[in-house]
Amino acid sequence: MRPFIDAHEITPHLLNKETKKSRKLYATLHDAIKASGLEDGMTISFHHSFRGGDKIINMVMNVIAQMGFKNLTLASSSLSSIHSPVVGHIKNGVVSKIYTSGIRGDLAEEISRGLLAEPVHIHSHGGRVHLIKTGELKIDVAFLGVSTCDEFGNANATMGKSRCGSLGYAKVDAEHAKTVIMLTEQLVPFPNLPASIGQDTVDAIVQVEEVGDPSKIGGDATRLTTNPRELLIARKAADVIEHSGYFFDGFSLQTGSGGASLAVTRFLEDKMVRKDVTASFGLGGITSTMVNMHEKGLIKTLLDVQSFDSSAADSLARNPRHMEISANQYANPSSKGAVVDRLDVVILSALEIDTNFNVNVITGSDGVIRGASGGHSDTAAAANLTIIVAPLVRGRIPTVVNKVLNTITPGSQIDVVVTDHGVAVNPIRTDVKTRLLRAGIPVVSMEDLQQRAELLTGKGKSIQYLDKVVGYIRYRDGSIIDTIKQIKE
Amino acid sequence: MRPFIDAHEITPHLLNKETKKSRKLYATLHDAIKASGLEDGMTISFHHSFRGGDKIINMVMNVIAQMGFKNLTLASSSLSSIHSPVVGHIKNGVVSKIYTSGIRGDLAEEISRGLLAEPVHIHSHGGRVHLIKTGELKIDVAFLGVSTCDEFGNANATMGKSRCGSLGYAKVDAEHAKTVIMLTEQLVPFPNLPASIGQDTVDAIVQVEEVGDPSKIGGDATRLTTNPRELLIARKAADVIEHSGYFFDGFSLQTGSGGASLAVTRFLEDKMVRKDVTASFGLGGITSTMVNMHEKGLIKTLLDVQSFDSSAADSLARNPRHMEISANQYANPSSKGAVVDRLDVVILSALEIDTNFNVNVITGSDGVIRGASGGHSDTAAAANLTIIVAPLVRGRIPTVVNKVLNTITPGSQIDVVVTDHGVAVNPIRTDVKTRLLRAGIPVVSMEDLQQRAELLTGKGKSIQYLDKVVGYIRYRDGSIIDTIKQIKE
Repeated sequence: MRPFIDAHEITPHLLNKETKKSRKLYATLHDAIKASGLEDGMTISFHHSFRGGDKIINMVMNVIAQMGFKNLTLASSSLSSIHSPVVGHIKNGVVSKIYTSGIRGDLAEEISRGLLAEPVHIHSHGGRVHLIKTGELKIDVAFLGVSTCDEFGNANATMGKSRCGSLGYAKVDAEHAKTVIMLTEQLVPFPNLPASIGQDTVDAIVQVEEVGDPSKIGGDATRLTTNPRELLIARKAADVIEHSGYFFDGFSLQTGSGGASLAVTRFLEDKMVRKDVTASFGLGGITSTMVNMHEKGLIKTLLDVQSFDSSAADSLARNPRHMEISANQYANPSSKGAVVDRLDVVILSALEIDTNFNVNVITGSDGVIRGASGGHSDTAAAANLTIIVAPLVRGRIPTVVNKVLNTITPGSQIDVVVTDHGVAVNPIRTDVKTRLLRAGIPVVSMEDLQQRAELLTGKGKSIQYLDKVVGYIRYRDGSIIDTIKQIKE
Repeated sequence: MRPFIDAHEITPHLLNKETKKSRKLYATLHDAIKASGLEDGMTISFHHSFRGGDKIINMVMNVIAQMGFKNLTLASSSLSSIHSPVVGHIKNGVVSKIYTSGIRGDLAEEISRGLLAEPVHIHSHGGRVHLIKTGELKIDVAFLGVSTCDEFGNANATMGKSRCGSLGYAKVDAEHAKTVIMLTEQLVPFPNLPASIGQDTVDAIVQVEEVGDPSKIGGDATRLTTNPRELLIARKAADVIEHSGYFFDGFSLQTGSGGASLAVTRFLEDKMVRKDVTASFGLGGITSTMVNMHEKGLIKTLLDVQSFDSSAADSLARNPRHMEISANQYANPSSKGAVVDRLDVVILSALEIDTNFNVNVITGSDGVIRGASGGHSDTAAAANLTIIVAPLVRGRIPTVVNKVLNTITPGSQIDVVVTDHGVAVNPIRTDVKTRLLRAGIPVVSMEDLQQRAELLTGKGKSIQYLDKVVGYIRYRDGSIIDTIKQIKE
C-alpha cells in the first residue's frame, strides 16, 4: 500500500480529452505491431474461424516478416492449406515453432519432411486452452480478425461483411494474450453490440480491407456430402444412435467435420420427428443442417464455438438460442465446466482406426500430416456415446488397420465404429452392443473389418521413417500421446 | 511435457456417467462450503446487486460462523445497513478484515468506533477490480446469489423470481475467485441463457429459498426524489449540462445514486427532445428513468453494471441494447478499456465538498462512516464533465466546507458544483465557466458557497479524533488517498 500521488498516476491516457477515446486506433498494422512490444522469440496467435477463407495470418505474417522479426512461435488455433506462405517464413527464420490443431497442404508436407527444427505441437481444441491456462502456451500478441469492431475494441463477427459467426477460439486468445490487436473490416460506432470480444481485452485496433472469405468456411471438411457411400454410412450411424440407448427426448449431440459425420444429423431428423424426440442442444461446429433443425424446434439450443458455414454465422445473429461459447466452455479438460462433458452423442471421422479403436485424424496413409486434431479427443473423452463414421477403405487405402500410424484419440474413448461394411462396438461397451443386437443391427468385430479391408486393398507397404520427430501429438491434458516421425522419401 | 498416461488423468469426474452432469450440485450450503476448501484466514466475497434487499451475506455468514471458521476477510463489493449481523461475526472472530465500497448502519457505526483491529478498506467499484487484478485482493471463495442457474453454473438474474438484473460485480468475482459457489433460487434446465455468469467459472451450486428482495434495490440512495430542493438542484444541473459544451448529439451520461443526481436525467429529457439530441449511451447504475428514455429512443444504449431498480432489471431482459457490463468494463482504471473513459457527463452526489473541490461521500459530519465510495472517483477521473449536485446545507449541517473530513474523490477531478444556492466551477475549467456565463448561468466561487453555508449553519464544532485509524480510503489506483480515524465519543 502506497500513498496517493496523483489522480492519473496509472491512467495518463485519460489526461488527453482528444485522444482518450481513440487511443487504441492505429493507422497501419505495422504501427500496431510496433506499439505491441513484439520481440524476437515471442509467441503470436490467431483464430481459425474463417478456415480455408482466412486472410489474416498471411497478411500479418508478411508484415511481421518485413519488420524483421525472427524466431517467433506461431500459435494459431488451427492452420489450413491456404497458409503455405508460412513455409517461407519458417525458411527465413521468422517462425521457428508452431502450435496448431491442424495443418494441411504445402506447410503440412514440408513439416512432415523436416522443415521445422522443433517438432510442431498438434493439440486438440480443448487441449489448446489447457496449454494456455497452464502457462505452457503464453501468447504475447494475438491478432484477431473480425468483421466489426468499435474504436474501443468491442467486436463481433455476426455483423458487417465477412462474417465467420462464432469467435469461440478468439475469445480465449483475447482473454489470455498479453497484447490483443483487432483487425476489423468495419469500424462501427461505440458500443458495438453484441460484443463477442469485449473492449477490456483489446489493446489495439486496425482497420483492414478484408479479414476472410466466409464462402470458404464451409469448404473441404465441412461440406454437405452427396457421396452415396458417405450417405449410406450416415444413415447407418443414425440407426445406431436411435438404438444406442442415448436417443431420448432431451438428448444432446455433436457432429464433427467430414462428410459422413455431418450428414448423420439429416438422417436423425426423420427419427426425431417420428419418435417425438427433441435434442436439448447441438454442439460444436454448427452447420446449416443444425440451424435448420433448430429453427424447426428439433434442437432447442445451439452452442456454437465455431460456425461451420455462413448460414450458421447468420443464424448466430438471428436466433436467440443459438449461442456463442468460448473454446474453454466448449472443451477444455481443466475448465470448471466444458459443454462436451454434457454430450450424449458425438459423431466423429477418422483417417485410420485400428483394431484397438485408436483413431488417427492427423496423418495420411503415407505418414504425411494432412488433418486436424480439432475437438476429436475432447468430445470422445467426454460424450456418453462416441461414434466413428468412416468408409472401410478409401481407394486402395484401408481405414481400419491393425495399428494406426498416429494416435489422436485413444481407443478406450471410442464406443462404436460405423463403416460401409459393418458396425463394430468397443468390447468395453457391452451395454451398447446388446441394445444394437436387440434392435436387429448386426455387429462385427474390428478384426473382421480390418481383414475385410485388407482383402480389398491388399497388405500395404509399411512406411519407412527417419529418427527425427517432426510432430508432438499432445493429448487434451497436455501429455504427449504420440510423436510423428519424419518419413523417408 | 510428460507422456500420456490415461485418457482421464485430469478428468476423473468424467468417468462416472451418472454424476458427471450433476457434479456441481450440493444439497446444502454447508456441504458446498466444506467442499470449497475454505480455511481460516481466507477471503470470501459477495456481490451487492440486491443492495438493501440482499439475503445472501447474512445467510452465508451464519453458516460459516456455525462451521467455526475464523479470521476471514470479507470482501463484498459493497455492504448495506441490513448487514449489521456482521458486527457479531467480527466480535466472534469470524471476520477480521473487510474490503468494501460502502458501509452503513450499525456495522458502519461500530467500525467507526474501532470494532475492527485492522482498518476497513474502502475502495471504489473500479478500484476493487484493480485490487483483484493486481493480486492484493485474492478471493478464495465467492458466494454469488442469482435468481436462476442451471446445474452446470450458467446463471443470470434477469429471469426467475428475485431478479436484481445486471450481475456486473459478480462477473468479476466469478472470473477471479479460486472457488465460486452459486446460490440460486431456481434450478433451470441446461443451458440457461443468457449466461451472465458462465459455467466455466462455477464450482458449486446450491439451491436456496431466496437470494434477495428486488423491491429493496431501489430504496434509499436510488429512490426517485420528490423533494422540491433536490428537484431544483437537478433542474439547475440539467441547465449546466445543456450549456457546458458536452450536450451534443451522441453525448453520453451517467447519474450516480442520490435523489438529485438521479433526477437530473428527467430534466435533461425535455432539453434532448427540444434540441433533437440523443445520447449514445447511458452508463452505470441504470434506473427506470434511464430505461424510459431508452425506450423512447433518447438514449441509444444502456450499459448496466448494476440495475438500480426492478424495472431496470426487467429492461435488461427485454431490451437488446440494454447491456450488462462487468465492473472491469465499467470502471477499472487498469482495464484495457473502461466505459467511464468514454463518458461525457457524470452527475454525482456529495456528503461534503470543500473549497478545493475534494469530495467526501463516506463519512457524515460527525466523522462516522455512512456512505459508499461506489463509482464516484472512477467516473470523476474519467468523464469529460464531472458535476456534483448537493444541497448547500442539510438541516444544520453544511455540505460545502473549508475542508472535507475525508476525501473519496480529489478536487482536481471535479468540474462543476451545483447547489441550491449557486453553481461553482473549478478554476481549471475556464472553458466550462466561460460557456456557462455566456448562457446566462451565474457562477459563484466555492468560497462564496462555503461562507453562505456557514452563515446558515454557524461554525460547526470540530470533531475530536483518536489516533487509531479505522478505515483506509483506497483511491481507484489502489493508493491510500485518506484514512478515517476513530472518533472520540
